[in-house]
Amino acid sequence: MPTTKTSTKSLRVLNSTDANFEELWLDLSRRASPHDPSTQTKPVLRKIESVREKGDEALFDALRKVCEHIPNKLELSPQEWDSGCEAVDSSDRAALGKAAMRIREFHRKRIPGSWEVREEGGAFMGQRVRPLSSVGIFSASDVPLDPSDIIMYATPASAVEVPEISLAAAPDSSGMIRPEILMAARLAGVHRIFKMTGAESVAAFALGTMTVPQAEKLIGPGGSEIEIAKSALLGEAGILTNPLPRELCIVADKTSTPAWVATDLLAHAQTNERAHGLLVTHCKTLPARVQSQLASQLKGLSGARKLKQRLAAQFAVVVTRSLAESLQWVDRYAPEHLAACVAKPDEVVRTVQNAGTILMGHYTPSAVGDVMAGPGGVLPSGGTSRYDSPLCVEDFLKKTHFVQFEASKLRELGHDAIRLAELDGFTARGASVELRLKRIRRARREREVAREAEL
Amino acid sequence: MPTTKTSTKSLRVLNSTDANFEELWLDLSRRASPHDPSTQTKPVLRKIESVREKGDEALFDALRKVCEHIPNKLELSPQEWDSGCEAVDSSDRAALGKAAMRIREFHRKRIPGSWEVREEGGAFMGQRVRPLSSVGIFSASDVPLDPSDIIMYATPASAVEVPEISLAAAPDSSGMIRPEILMAARLAGVHRIFKMTGAESVAAFALGTMTVPQAEKLIGPGGSEIEIAKSALLGEAGILTNPLPRELCIVADKTSTPAWVATDLLAHAQTNERAHGLLVTHCKTLPARVQSQLASQLKGLSGARKLKQRLAAQFAVVVTRSLAESLQWVDRYAPEHLAACVAKPDEVVRTVQNAGTILMGHYTPSAVGDVMAGPGGVLPSGGTSRYDSPLCVEDFLKKTHFVQFEASKLRELGHDAIRLAELDGFTARGASVELRLKRIRRARREREVAREAEL
Repeated sequence: MPTTKTSTKSLRVLNSTDANFEELWLDLSRRASPHDPSTQTKPVLRKIESVREKGDEALFDALRKVCEHIPNKLELSPQEWDSGCEAVDSSDRAALGKAAMRIREFHRKRIPGSWEVREEGGAFMGQRVRPLSSVGIFSASDVPLDPSDIIMYATPASAVEVPEISLAAAPDSSGMIRPEILMAARLAGVHRIFKMTGAESVAAFALGTMTVPQAEKLIGPGGSEIEIAKSALLGEAGILTNPLPRELCIVADKTSTPAWVATDLLAHAQTNERAHGLLVTHCKTLPARVQSQLASQLKGLSGARKLKQRLAAQFAVVVTRSLAESLQWVDRYAPEHLAACVAKPDEVVRTVQNAGTILMGHYTPSAVGDVMAGPGGVLPSGGTSRYDSPLCVEDFLKKTHFVQFEASKLRELGHDAIRLAELDGFTARGASVELRLKRIRRARREREVAREAEL
Repeated sequence: MPTTKTSTKSLRVLNSTDANFEELWLDLSRRASPHDPSTQTKPVLRKIESVREKGDEALFDALRKVCEHIPNKLELSPQEWDSGCEAVDSSDRAALGKAAMRIREFHRKRIPGSWEVREEGGAFMGQRVRPLSSVGIFSASDVPLDPSDIIMYATPASAVEVPEISLAAAPDSSGMIRPEILMAARLAGVHRIFKMTGAESVAAFALGTMTVPQAEKLIGPGGSEIEIAKSALLGEAGILTNPLPRELCIVADKTSTPAWVATDLLAHAQTNERAHGLLVTHCKTLPARVQSQLASQLKGLSGARKLKQRLAAQFAVVVTRSLAESLQWVDRYAPEHLAACVAKPDEVVRTVQNAGTILMGHYTPSAVGDVMAGPGGVLPSGGTSRYDSPLCVEDFLKKTHFVQFEASKLRELGHDAIRLAELDGFTARGASVELRLKRIRRARREREVAREAEL
C-alpha cells in the first residue's frame, strides 16, 4: 500500500464542540454486545452437553481435533510440569517471578477477615469469611491464555489460600503445553493443570468429570463462547468473566509525549481484536502529532495492516475544551484502562468515578500497570466499570452470616418481629416467634412461683 | 378433607442408609432452574422494548392495567410520602425502625475503605473504594416487595451512603402505595419512590426514562421474569438478584423442640411458593414428632391446603447416623438459610462451609434472623451459597485500582515488563516500554556528560 496523505490518518478525530457530537459520541461509546446468540449458541451447547454426558471422553474427543499426539492423561503429570519449568529461560523465569511476587504482594494488603459481635442482652452475630474451596481457570478457545494472564487470574486466588486452583491449558499439536505457561502457573500458585480449552473447559470445571474436579468458581477471559457457556451453566458454579471489548482510554495534556501516546494505543490495539481505544485531550496540537507518530510506528510492526484497520474502526480521538471536560467524557465512557498522561494524575484519580484501573503519569504504560506493577489487569470492561470492580481477593472469598439470639433477646425483640411478620402478611412467621415467647413466659412464671414459694 | 392417618404425614422421610439414597438425594437437592425461557421470554422482552422506546409512556401504560385511578406522576411526591408515613401505626413504626436501625448497625461494622502504598524507588499504587452513585430497587410483578424486603435491600446501600437510592413500588388500584412501604423506605434511607413494578421497573432503572433516573446497579427479588430481564439488559447496568427457590435447612438434635422445628418449616413454606425445606437430623424420634406437630399446626392456618401440598412436594426429612454426617449433607445442599437447632450451634458454624446465613440455637427463628437481628435475609439461594455471599455493603461499592511508576521504577522493572510482553507475543507492548527506557537512558547520559563537563 503506497503511503499517501490519507494513510497517515489512522484515527477519527471528533470535536466535542461539533454540532452533532452527542450523536457521534453515542456511536463511539456504544460497544457491541458480547455475542450474537443466534449463530453461536448451538455448537457451544453441544460441547457442554457432551461433557455432561460423556465426561473425560468428551475432553479427549476435543483433544483429538487439535493434537496429533493425544496425551494419555488429561491432567499434566508432576514430571511433565517440572521438566517444562526447567526448560524456561532464566531471565523469563525472573520476569515471571517478579510479576507473580508483586501481584501477590498487592493483593495481600487487604484481605477481609471474619468478625463477630456480642450484644448486651443475649445476641451474638457476625460474618464468617473463608476462601472458596476450589477455583478453575478456563481458557477461551479463540484466545489462548498467555503466561501473564495466568499470573493475573491465579495469584489473587492463591493470595487467599484457595486450596485447589486448577488451570485449563490448551496443548499444542504434539500434546504438550508451553513451558512458560507451566512456569507461570507454578509461580502463581496453581495446583493442577488439565489439557483442555474453550467451552469444554468451562463445562468440565462447572460439572466435574472423573479426572477434572468440580470447581466452586470459574474465572477466565470473556468472549461469545464463554458468555453462552455461562448462561447455560448458571447455578452449577459461579462463573466470572469480563465481557469484551477491552478498552484503553488515554486522557492527555500538553505534558504528554505524542510518541508515547501513539505507542500505548498501538500496544493496546495489538492485544485483542476486540480492543477499543480513545484518546481524549484538550490539547489541540496533540491529535495530529499522535497521528503522524502512529503512521511511522505502524511501519515497523508486523500485522500493521490489521492494526491500522482496527485503529480506524475501533479507536478515536475526542478533542475537548478543558481537562475537566475530558474527564466528564471519560466518566461517561467508563473505560477498563484509563491512562492519565497528564501533569497531575492524582487529580484524575480524585475526579473520575468510572474506570477499572488508572495508569498514572507518563511512565506507567499498561505493559507495566497490568502485569508487572501489582494490581493486575483483569478489569471490568465494556463499560461495566460504572458498577463493577477489578478482579481482587474478594472474588475468591465467600461470606456466611451467623446470628444467635438467646431467650432474653428474643423476649426483648420478639414482639417487634411478630409485628413485622404481620405487616409482611406472614402469619406463620409470627407464630414461630410467638410459640417461643410462650415458653419464655411460662419459664418466667415458674421461676416467679418458685421464688414466692421460697419466701 | 377428613383427617386420616396418612394426612398427618406431610413430609417425605428419607434415610441416608437407604440403598437408593444417593439417587433420592440427587432428586431432592436438585432445585428447578429459575425459569422456562421458551414460554416467558417474549412478553418480558416486549415490556423492556416498550420502556426503551416509549420511556415514561410505557410505564403509564403498565399502570393503566392495574390502577383505576392513574396517578398524574410516576414519582411519589414528598407530600404523599409524608402523609403515608403519618398513617402508620406507632407500634408498626417502632418495629420497622428497630429493624432498620439494627440492619444498619450490622452492615456499618466493616466498610472497606480506600488504601494506597508508596514503594521505595518510585512507585505508588492502591485501591480506591467508592459507593455506587445510584441504586434502583426493582420489584417482581408476581411477588410485591413487603416492608421488610425494602429494609433488607436498601439499608446496606444507605449504610455506605449511596447518594441516590430509588425504589420501584407497585401502587394499588387507587394509585396509592401502602403506608408501611413508604415508612420502611424512609427508615431504610430510600431517596425516591416510583410507581412501577416487574420487568418495566427493571428496564426503567437500567435504561433511565425522563422521570426515572438510570441506576448503576439494580437489586431486587428473583424469579423468571427478572432472570429474563437481567439477560436482556446485560451490560446496561449491574443487576443483582438471587435466584429462586428460597431454602431453609434445619439441622436438629435431641435438644430441639419438635413444635418449634415444625413452626419454622411452616413459616418458611408460607413465605414463597418456591420455598424448599429440609430437616436433617440424626435424632430418630424427631421426624415423627415434627410430622404430628405439622399436622396439628396446619389446622389453624389459613391456606393450609396449599401449604400442605408445598410441604409434600418441596420439603423433606433426611435421617442420618450422626450430627457430623448431617453437616456433610447440609454442605452438599448449600442452603440459603441454615437453622442450627442443636446444643452446640457454634460447632455448626465452624464445620459447615456452604450456607447464606446460619441461625444459631433454638431462639433464632428466621423471622428474627432475617429481618430483626441485623445481618438481613437477602441471601444466596438455589445452591449458590457454595460460591456466593449474602447481600452486603460490598455490593454497593465499586473499586478502582491505580498505579504510578516514576522513571526510576520503570528503569528497575522495564526490562522484565518487556520480557513478559514478548512471552505473551505482544511486541508493541514491549515497544511502549522500550520507547520510554530510551528517553530515560538518554537523560541519564546527558546528566553524565554535564557532570563530566563540570569536573
